[in-house]
Amino acid sequence: MGIPMSIPLPVIEALDEALMQQAQRRLDQLTKPLGSLGRLEAIAKQLVGIRRAQHPHVTEKVIITMAADHGVAAEGVSAYPQAVTAQMVANFLRGGAGINVLARHVGARIVVVDMGVAAALAPHPHLVSRKIRAGTSNFAHGPAMTREEASAAIAAGCDIAQREIERGADLIGTGDMGIGNTTASSAIAAAMTGQPVERVTGHGTGIDERARAKKLAVIQRALKQHRPDPSDPLDVLAKVGGFEIAGLVGVILAGAGTRRPVVLDGFISGAAALIAAGLEPTVRGYLIASHRSQEPGHRLMLEHLGLQPLLDLDLRLGEGTGAALAMPLIEAACRIINDMATFDEAGVSTRSH
Amino acid sequence: MGIPMSIPLPVIEALDEALMQQAQRRLDQLTKPLGSLGRLEAIAKQLVGIRRAQHPHVTEKVIITMAADHGVAAEGVSAYPQAVTAQMVANFLRGGAGINVLARHVGARIVVVDMGVAAALAPHPHLVSRKIRAGTSNFAHGPAMTREEASAAIAAGCDIAQREIERGADLIGTGDMGIGNTTASSAIAAAMTGQPVERVTGHGTGIDERARAKKLAVIQRALKQHRPDPSDPLDVLAKVGGFEIAGLVGVILAGAGTRRPVVLDGFISGAAALIAAGLEPTVRGYLIASHRSQEPGHRLMLEHLGLQPLLDLDLRLGEGTGAALAMPLIEAACRIINDMATFDEAGVSTRSH
Repeated sequence: MGIPMSIPLPVIEALDEALMQQAQRRLDQLTKPLGSLGRLEAIAKQLVGIRRAQHPHVTEKVIITMAADHGVAAEGVSAYPQAVTAQMVANFLRGGAGINVLARHVGARIVVVDMGVAAALAPHPHLVSRKIRAGTSNFAHGPAMTREEASAAIAAGCDIAQREIERGADLIGTGDMGIGNTTASSAIAAAMTGQPVERVTGHGTGIDERARAKKLAVIQRALKQHRPDPSDPLDVLAKVGGFEIAGLVGVILAGAGTRRPVVLDGFISGAAALIAAGLEPTVRGYLIASHRSQEPGHRLMLEHLGLQPLLDLDLRLGEGTGAALAMPLIEAACRIINDMATFDEAGVSTRSH
Repeated sequence: MGIPMSIPLPVIEALDEALMQQAQRRLDQLTKPLGSLGRLEAIAKQLVGIRRAQHPHVTEKVIITMAADHGVAAEGVSAYPQAVTAQMVANFLRGGAGINVLARHVGARIVVVDMGVAAALAPHPHLVSRKIRAGTSNFAHGPAMTREEASAAIAAGCDIAQREIERGADLIGTGDMGIGNTTASSAIAAAMTGQPVERVTGHGTGIDERARAKKLAVIQRALKQHRPDPSDPLDVLAKVGGFEIAGLVGVILAGAGTRRPVVLDGFISGAAALIAAGLEPTVRGYLIASHRSQEPGHRLMLEHLGLQPLLDLDLRLGEGTGAALAMPLIEAACRIINDMATFDEAGVSTRSH
């Protein structure tokens, strides 16, 4: 890598190609026309390569939803006041938010993490507190955080994911909450992919054209002023990122480092994945893109990462809701390769021509 | 309608628009940016309109998988021998097929129906026998079935669906098995939509270009010879359809007639939906397209029906596998409108601008 970091990056090995070829042979013997389960077959193969097992299982699903505030929210880039970040964390802890409903539905556990909410949150048995600071600095004026803060947030994310994996998690979803975080994610996308700011900046929570113009101008000015270096992803993260995004970088790296599939939610998780893949390109093999967000920049992020989303449902909620919705499809892929009968077993004739 | 049919069509009412507008107001009060759950919100609204209930529930999911053989298979239009239809029905009954694995995964019950398999199937507690005849006639030479057979198959499908609904089914998926049935479905698609045969005819189970050319020629000749009348969908069904397709027409009509959402699988189910919507246009409001098949004609079918698929995973297996995969998303939509907290309930601030 050559980039000095204060945290040791986990070693991330490439997927096991030989096992994946073996998986392809098995998929081709199952009682269905060749390739007829499309993307599910590709996911099944990927799971085999990630888990280094011909029969991968998904038993314990966890979604790690990280929350933090953004100094740049002061620029009026969101449709909602900053207080909503803390209020939504409370909503997560009471079980009334979208992610609660969808995680319950798919049988996933949620881990709610305060990475840097701009309010003192009351301790709660289901809240993990890893607050780096009460919100980033406004990157319209200076870097969002120091390089040390970025490293500490990544390390915290790694640590949280590793604990969940030790407790048995074998499918890790990412999620986010943070008023202003599509602004940070658009800035990261522009810096890491080289795409013009206009192409990677959308309407976030639903701002009007006037607010979007302000959002564009803030990002363009910040990139010009801070000159984040895409060959040094930690620099990009520190200058225009957020604490929850940095935490998710750690979650992604730790998931891949312990050979767990990581299910990316939408735009914010995509920004974290750009940083993680910038730090360690082999991480890409471990990623599953749950959906394509309505945020226009998400498509470009996924193309840059070489990922094809499973769902395209015009979602733009975040929190991990897209990751939750994709989990049953990933489990389905697992079941296909494990449970379907082969032509031989079922006594079904193979192709006649 | 004006088309004489020997079975009484169920009365299918339009969706309840007033209740759907009420549902939209509730969706807009939930703790999420306006519209941010995209297609899930549209499905939730549709379920409210179908079930005439502010809090629709999906408790009992059933997939009705209908099998039959096709005389046109003798023209060499499939990559698999005709015997595979009966062999796959046996595979369904033993639980080893794709649909078994995916239905178990999503908690749906499967009803396997012999609508006209070209083999004497041994009685089995889980096989519903409604055989019209041991396979259709080869429509390369004459009509696939008589008008009376088409009506009888629709009536059988209605009856089977109604029994399941009486037993509690509140989400009905469609599925099919029948060597040669993409040929019949392409012919129906061309006849009902007016699209050229080339645009609605694909590679089915995976035939090569030579076999596809034969398939195209067979369909083109049959349409020229039989002149199926799109204003008389029963005529189209009888001349170039199949017994499983006709049975699914009945399932769709009965589902809509008893105000149940009907989840369409892929290309074959799409052909059945074209016939059903031709007979009774209000049926469209009750349909949910589970996925967009890899069969190129499926996109045109869905456009003609005004449906947008939930999934796009390059599937082309049939059996009801796409319907099964979409069911968790439909349940998720239900949970959203029933279980999410409102801004008021959660004490979360609404938009500041």
